[in-house]
Amino acid sequence: MHDTPTTTRTTTASIEPREFGVGGRITLSVMSDDYVDVILGALAATQSDGLTVETDRISTWVTGAEQDIARYFSGLVAAAARGGHHVVATVMLSRGCPGEVTCERPERPPVFADAAVQLAPTGVEAVAQWALYPLDDQGTPERTADHMRDIYAAIEDAKASGTYVGSDHYVTRLAGDVAAILQTITATWAAVGRTVAHVTTHATISVNSPSVALRAEDGR
Amino acid sequence: MHDTPTTTRTTTASIEPREFGVGGRITLSVMSDDYVDVILGALAATQSDGLTVETDRISTWVTGAEQDIARYFSGLVAAAARGGHHVVATVMLSRGCPGEVTCERPERPPVFADAAVQLAPTGVEAVAQWALYPLDDQGTPERTADHMRDIYAAIEDAKASGTYVGSDHYVTRLAGDVAAILQTITATWAAVGRTVAHVTTHATISVNSPSVALRAEDGR
Repeated sequence: MHDTPTTTRTTTASIEPREFGVGGRITLSVMSDDYVDVILGALAATQSDGLTVETDRISTWVTGAEQDIARYFSGLVAAAARGGHHVVATVMLSRGCPGEVTCERPERPPVFADAAVQLAPTGVEAVAQWALYPLDDQGTPERTADHMRDIYAAIEDAKASGTYVGSDHYVTRLAGDVAAILQTITATWAAVGRTVAHVTTHATISVNSPSVALRAEDGR
Repeated sequence: MHDTPTTTRTTTASIEPREFGVGGRITLSVMSDDYVDVILGALAATQSDGLTVETDRISTWVTGAEQDIARYFSGLVAAAARGGHHVVATVMLSRGCPGEVTCERPERPPVFADAAVQLAPTGVEAVAQWALYPLDDQGTPERTADHMRDIYAAIEDAKASGTYVGSDHYVTRLAGDVAAILQTITATWAAVGRTVAHVTTHATISVNSPSVALRAEDGR
């Protein structure tokens, strides 16, 4: 939680992603008696280049560049699901609250990379429920606050990417390759982060669900 | 996602919880080959009095009174975990965005019940990572916006309840009876909702984790 006793703003010109709290958490749940082997195997098999990674007993925390986080999460979910097990990944991404207690941010959000997040397909199909939270929409020196503009833009991006399926209570439904879903989630979170200092996003991603006719149910 | 093309405010004097979008989603993940039976058994065994409940292939959505939602989620997690399986519950609560597309809210947040959320212990111990998001902190006619005040109050409530363990990147760690954890999450979300029109909260709750020495690790 962004439980921040002090919220201050600096005008730092140069800042690294991890200094701005760019990172996320992922919990892999594997519906199988051998879940320990599957989860540890996926963690061991997935390259984490460029990232700081720490696994606690509930989730794996990562910090680093947006592209690297997206690639790592996509790789982890695909690796855990390749054996055919039903896997649920609980994913969150956060930016703008770097510390555990303090929440010191630059006056305007830093931009870390101009390149859009691009992930190679994994060949693993998934469905997801996704929510995006622009928390600190006080505006920047150039723009006034309007968090709905950012939400609309994110949904348009999801539609353009082909992962958007529909809206439901509190969430947007996505479907497609695990990589395409994580690309949508990460790219829209990063895009909102260009103008909003504190942004989080949550998604529950499901692979190999026994529910039948996934595409048919969604009209895809 | 609160993907709302129109955000309007009304001054409705009387409103039901579901009209204000008071509800949540829960995904039960059971790390066992017989996960389908365990999940369906938990859903069948848990009383959902007073709630509207719909299970899709990713989560179970509920809407109704705060107390009923908390009791239902606590019962579900405890029922799924009583067989000793490692269970992860992905929980979200939301208020203030009732529709799938529109986000029509009263000018000030309605108060549905004066009684605090109170749950009977389940006897099932859990740990959790929790985040609280006051999204629409524009203030009410009586109060100006200050979402940090609400965050501090929520953490103080968690400490008073005995479930607070510590802070980590993006989340607060909780531990205790499943009911105590869900009481903390629901009561603080409801409390922030007294002054903030749109509030969500997310938690990943873990029961029967093979990680050893849970309490020792947390210094409890």
